[in-house]
Amino acid sequence: MTFELHPNLAKKAFIIDWPLCRVLLEDNSHYPWLFLVPRRPSISRIMDLNKLDQIQLLEELDALQKTLWDSYHPDQLNVAAIGNKTPQLHIHVIARFQQDPAWPETVWSCSERSPYASLTSTVEELRKRLSHFF
Amino acid sequence: MTFELHPNLAKKAFIIDWPLCRVLLEDNSHYPWLFLVPRRPSISRIMDLNKLDQIQLLEELDALQKTLWDSYHPDQLNVAAIGNKTPQLHIHVIARFQQDPAWPETVWSCSERSPYASLTSTVEELRKRLSHFF
Repeated sequence: MTFELHPNLAKKAFIIDWPLCRVLLEDNSHYPWLFLVPRRPSISRIMDLNKLDQIQLLEELDALQKTLWDSYHPDQLNVAAIGNKTPQLHIHVIARFQQDPAWPETVWSCSERSPYASLTSTVEELRKRLSHFF
Repeated sequence: MTFELHPNLAKKAFIIDWPLCRVLLEDNSHYPWLFLVPRRPSISRIMDLNKLDQIQLLEELDALQKTLWDSYHPDQLNVAAIGNKTPQLHIHVIARFQQDPAWPETVWSCSERSPYASLTSTVEELRKRLSHFF
């Protein structure tokens, strides 16, 4: 089997392919909301990854958290693998602000959306920052 | 500084101390809902842990996921570090079922609670299962 994005994830904006994960962006300017999707077929949970892939996931998670922290100076970072509606393993990494419309609740209970003024330039800026790793 | 639980976490049921984390249980029988709390002072995000601690967290996360999976046969596992209301780093590890009252939404948007018939015996059973690791 080959790696393919679930239709719900294929709708997100593509940023970059890292050694393990495809990095995607939600088009919602309320909070920088990224996804790490391990490029392995038929994986639904972190525990389904082999040990080496789990360690690589940790490295990529660390790089993404530090990039969001240094780029956006948020109040908190939310990191989560949920997958109740989209069973393909994807890890949300979200920069959260005390002034964002969902705070202090989670983003999943907030239906407010605000597309980026320029999704293309946001993607390009993030791609540039994330291309320094690995 | 020494490690101390945030008051919101001190209310949870104590299961066991693993090499890095204290393992806690939410008294809500709707879903087996556990927490991994790294026993390090002043840590709010996974990226705040040093590399060795991050790798140990991954090991403990893997052991906890596999225990929940094998013990409860859930439909999905939710793993999340949020920390918007409780800034001390704690990772939720939750066994989810298509028949649980929050499915397919996250547990954080569901106010339904149902204490265990016997919290003591649930804690003892989990402690027994988790004592085989590390």
